[in-house]
Amino acid sequence: MEPVGLSLGQPREERADAARNRARLIEVAREMVAELGADKVTMDGLAERAGLGKGTVFRRFRTRAGIFHALLDEEEKRFQERLMSGRPPLGPGAPAVERLVAFGQARLEFLVEHTVLARAALDPGQPVPIGDGPSLFHVQMLLNEACPDAASSGALALQLVAALEGPILLYLQSADAPSPMVNDLIASWQVLVERVAVS
Amino acid sequence: MEPVGLSLGQPREERADAARNRARLIEVAREMVAELGADKVTMDGLAERAGLGKGTVFRRFRTRAGIFHALLDEEEKRFQERLMSGRPPLGPGAPAVERLVAFGQARLEFLVEHTVLARAALDPGQPVPIGDGPSLFHVQMLLNEACPDAASSGALALQLVAALEGPILLYLQSADAPSPMVNDLIASWQVLVERVAVS
Repeated sequence: MEPVGLSLGQPREERADAARNRARLIEVAREMVAELGADKVTMDGLAERAGLGKGTVFRRFRTRAGIFHALLDEEEKRFQERLMSGRPPLGPGAPAVERLVAFGQARLEFLVEHTVLARAALDPGQPVPIGDGPSLFHVQMLLNEACPDAASSGALALQLVAALEGPILLYLQSADAPSPMVNDLIASWQVLVERVAVS
Repeated sequence: MEPVGLSLGQPREERADAARNRARLIEVAREMVAELGADKVTMDGLAERAGLGKGTVFRRFRTRAGIFHALLDEEEKRFQERLMSGRPPLGPGAPAVERLVAFGQARLEFLVEHTVLARAALDPGQPVPIGDGPSLFHVQMLLNEACPDAASSGALALQLVAALEGPILLYLQSADAPSPMVNDLIASWQVLVERVAVS
């Protein structure tokens, strides 16, 4: 039996079409980024190459940055899976502090690997997505385990996520700013977390 | 004797005029923010009320956000003076860890007090000014004193500045995001710094 909420208005084939279009657009967008570079990908160009109407592309992504946001989202899902069910210490099964250290290293490498996408996904005038979503949730969970006394307000988790993602996400916005040294950031994240988690 | 570089081209009265115009514009802009709110301050409105040409205002500030940036700059200078020559523990004369704790509290209060200006000074498409300038310099200096072993790469100072300023500066960009609890941020900044500085 289908839940009532889902059977109103939307025939099942239409939903299937929308899902197919979305998958097609993501695949074509990924090809275009790889071939042409993110700078050259436009809403119109994507519609044309995917053989879909411009209206479909605009409804799906709303802005040009929305295309890259969707591509980054796919990568984020894969990253989240490694946290949820990957091998320890990134995945479950290691002490919380070790998981925090591993998370920081993996997250910094993720942000660096997807620099081009992350830069293109930043929408001028929109907030930088720090402290927003899964990273904050994950850090809060591990802090609760490692040092419940200090972590209770949520402020410490927010500060640690800003410490981790801030340097890379913020420098991303100005193309001519110097790249932070990722290995230095990984090393100092470990210092930060190991010292904070002493309780 | 005047240095050669300064005597070329610019008569002294012209420089004095420019300084007077700048001071006048800052004063009028501050009045307008107080009376009308930052939202209502425009380049044209400022020129008219200051009795100066539009060209003068545009040359001075370049963008509307530039007006608020200049106002915030004046406040920043006063803040920097408290760090350099104010009473301890914010000013010189206290142990480095105590100064870091005091700096975090004062900085968070500063950012909250100037929320309206700081929000108006954010230029869409421009980088958020974290890790940029005096805060980074100050934190690096105190970290060098408190834990020279961990601070040498500069990455830890950058992460701590992002931890401190990130939550407030980033939330500022979306007017409807929830305000972080400042007292919680002040308390967890103290935890962060006191634990990091154990060496």
